[in-house]
Amino acid sequence: MEHVPDQTINRLPVYLRCLTRARDQGLRVVNSLQLSIMVGTNAAQVRKDLSYLGELGTRGIGYDVDSLMAQISGVLGLTEKRRVAIVGYGRLGGSLLGYKGFAERGFDIVGIFDADPAKAGRAADLRGSVATGLTVRSMDHLEDDLRELGVDIVILTTPAEVAQEVAERVAAGGVRAILNFAPLRLRLPDDVRVKEVDVSVDLQVLSFHLG
Amino acid sequence: MEHVPDQTINRLPVYLRCLTRARDQGLRVVNSLQLSIMVGTNAAQVRKDLSYLGELGTRGIGYDVDSLMAQISGVLGLTEKRRVAIVGYGRLGGSLLGYKGFAERGFDIVGIFDADPAKAGRAADLRGSVATGLTVRSMDHLEDDLRELGVDIVILTTPAEVAQEVAERVAAGGVRAILNFAPLRLRLPDDVRVKEVDVSVDLQVLSFHLG
Repeated sequence: MEHVPDQTINRLPVYLRCLTRARDQGLRVVNSLQLSIMVGTNAAQVRKDLSYLGELGTRGIGYDVDSLMAQISGVLGLTEKRRVAIVGYGRLGGSLLGYKGFAERGFDIVGIFDADPAKAGRAADLRGSVATGLTVRSMDHLEDDLRELGVDIVILTTPAEVAQEVAERVAAGGVRAILNFAPLRLRLPDDVRVKEVDVSVDLQVLSFHLG
Repeated sequence: MEHVPDQTINRLPVYLRCLTRARDQGLRVVNSLQLSIMVGTNAAQVRKDLSYLGELGTRGIGYDVDSLMAQISGVLGLTEKRRVAIVGYGRLGGSLLGYKGFAERGFDIVGIFDADPAKAGRAADLRGSVATGLTVRSMDHLEDDLRELGVDIVILTTPAEVAQEVAERVAAGGVRAILNFAPLRLRLPDDVRVKEVDVSVDLQVLSFHLG
């Protein structure tokens, strides 16, 4: 497979989400125009993005929904389950834990950590979640615990003040991907991939468009 | 000002965040290389992005931190306060409400809404937040309330099942920008700008990079 641009990678999950909905509504085939409307781009962009996957569709007909979904899932590595831990069990960590969408998209929450001794050892509130029987772990043995649990991705929801230090421990625990909700830029070795979620940044972008 | 590409707009808040930290650490001048390292891009990209603002820095010296911050804030429209409402006061809405970063970045939370009659009329939990005296409003008069409050941006944190319907009411209430946490693509008039936050999408992108 040739090198896929980051922008295309960023759109693939959105295609997948739209295709899932299309399939649930009984659609078997979509063309690039339909897909572009669902995704909010244009048909040329859709054809270009999908061509990176070697998927050219059938001229005049379109793409088979099931096989396109399988192909995107394969490229994104979603055919294997990913093991996810939430580090920082405050309100944000708790609300993420309750998110139904994880499991159906191949992400299993296998661990929850918090530095607060009052939280450690307590059962996590799993309302809305499909995870079962999770107990909040202390951070005392974070590195070892992450290794033992075989965690692929950490969702980091600690306060900003400790995020860098905790992230370094997460990396030391062998985790190579971090979704960072703490509002600062983590400095980690190049082999650790970090994606930042910062609501203020999103609001500032919206603010620009308000004029 | 010439047309600024979306990708540049998306990076401006990140520059701003890094510049704020640099200033807090006593830095008065930064060059494009330093800035690129902070932001995680390259110096050529920084110079290109900032050239859209008409900001060329001083050759061999760099950019004045304060004036660059002022310029970016101006472009992003952050010099005026934005009035924000959270619609959907579940765990996610609650955790966003507690986010300290809003006010210091020019976003005032002025309203909280929830469809649950048991929540309406109750004081919102403002731990961690700088907002004061907010009471959860019912959704009975959402459109009128949004207009009356002068809301610029809505953070939508309702369940996915009702998000489209609620978003239409938000648009009918005169709001032109929505930050959507519900995991579906909203269909709204073109003059309403929507930005989606979907943790699953972020996890899928990370998953790709795990290989």
